[in-house]
Amino acid sequence: MSLSEIDQLIHLLSKLPGLGARSARRATLHLIKHRESLLIPLASATDAAARSIKTCSICGNLDTIDPCNICTNNARDRKTLCVVEDVSDLWALERAGIFSGLYHVLGGTLSALDGVGPEELAVESLLQRVQEREFTEVILGLSATVDGQTTVHYLTERLSEQSIKISHLAHGVPVGGELDYLDDGTLAMALKSRRTAI
Amino acid sequence: MSLSEIDQLIHLLSKLPGLGARSARRATLHLIKHRESLLIPLASATDAAARSIKTCSICGNLDTIDPCNICTNNARDRKTLCVVEDVSDLWALERAGIFSGLYHVLGGTLSALDGVGPEELAVESLLQRVQEREFTEVILGLSATVDGQTTVHYLTERLSEQSIKISHLAHGVPVGGELDYLDDGTLAMALKSRRTAI
Repeated sequence: MSLSEIDQLIHLLSKLPGLGARSARRATLHLIKHRESLLIPLASATDAAARSIKTCSICGNLDTIDPCNICTNNARDRKTLCVVEDVSDLWALERAGIFSGLYHVLGGTLSALDGVGPEELAVESLLQRVQEREFTEVILGLSATVDGQTTVHYLTERLSEQSIKISHLAHGVPVGGELDYLDDGTLAMALKSRRTAI
Repeated sequence: MSLSEIDQLIHLLSKLPGLGARSARRATLHLIKHRESLLIPLASATDAAARSIKTCSICGNLDTIDPCNICTNNARDRKTLCVVEDVSDLWALERAGIFSGLYHVLGGTLSALDGVGPEELAVESLLQRVQEREFTEVILGLSATVDGQTTVHYLTERLSEQSIKISHLAHGVPVGGELDYLDDGTLAMALKSRRTAI
């Protein structure tokens, strides 16, 4: 059999995160069976994405325009900058609709294990943005992992030379989380950071 | 934000089996980040698939030519016909490399619950093929589900008018399967269909 078109589709889909060989086969078959409603739209959507999506030269966000829609939106709070690891974190904050400031996508975290140093991340451009603009606060919206917190410490030190408020996300019990399922670290942090109720 | 291209991609990927909204977002981001190695190839592969893949008018297989590469392959055993539910089952048998005959894709199984009758499946074309060609055996390679077995019974009855050997797949303990994890039905079937060792 020379099913090169089908095999090629399976091969590419199997490289997506969360899809293995088996689910890529299922997905391919599903696509071919839904030619009009899925396969053709996906062909044009991937083509449009490949042609039009670029990385914002200011914040690192992905958009069809550069600078991106967030950086150019004057209705947003231009005094607050939130530093995130990845575009997916930016998307998560935007979906939640809880932050109206600007973003800076680092492109990862410092990692001694993976050999990621400050020069691999968008650190210099961050320092430059903070220096140039009139931000009043930089929120370090990084993961509560070892690497994330290492990066928080590093950025706090680098930014401390500039007279600006630096904050990081609160640690504690996740909303809806049950105490007896929590790890000790989170529990300790939640107790240490307890808030006065009255 | 007017991220229509990104949102469109997420929306389409989330419709694939095995992908939800969250994994579709991850997959989209992965695609955009691997523009050259994944996004562009996927755009051309989906486009090529949409343009070139068709359903074989003889057996129902998917291929770029009609009749398909299996139906036109004279090196295959053209005396044996294996009836399968779906193209994915045909792929599974081809991957295993254990069957060298021809196929007939039914397009599903009879299902009283889902209202699938014989006219929804490729039953008439099966009867016609069996009548016209010189098959010596028809293997009913259907699932061991209630609907699959109903279909086996139905097809056995319809095919019984023609003097042809009709067989179905053996039921029993899956290779590598442990007895105490097996359901009673399979265990009963494996015992009932026991083979003489010497």
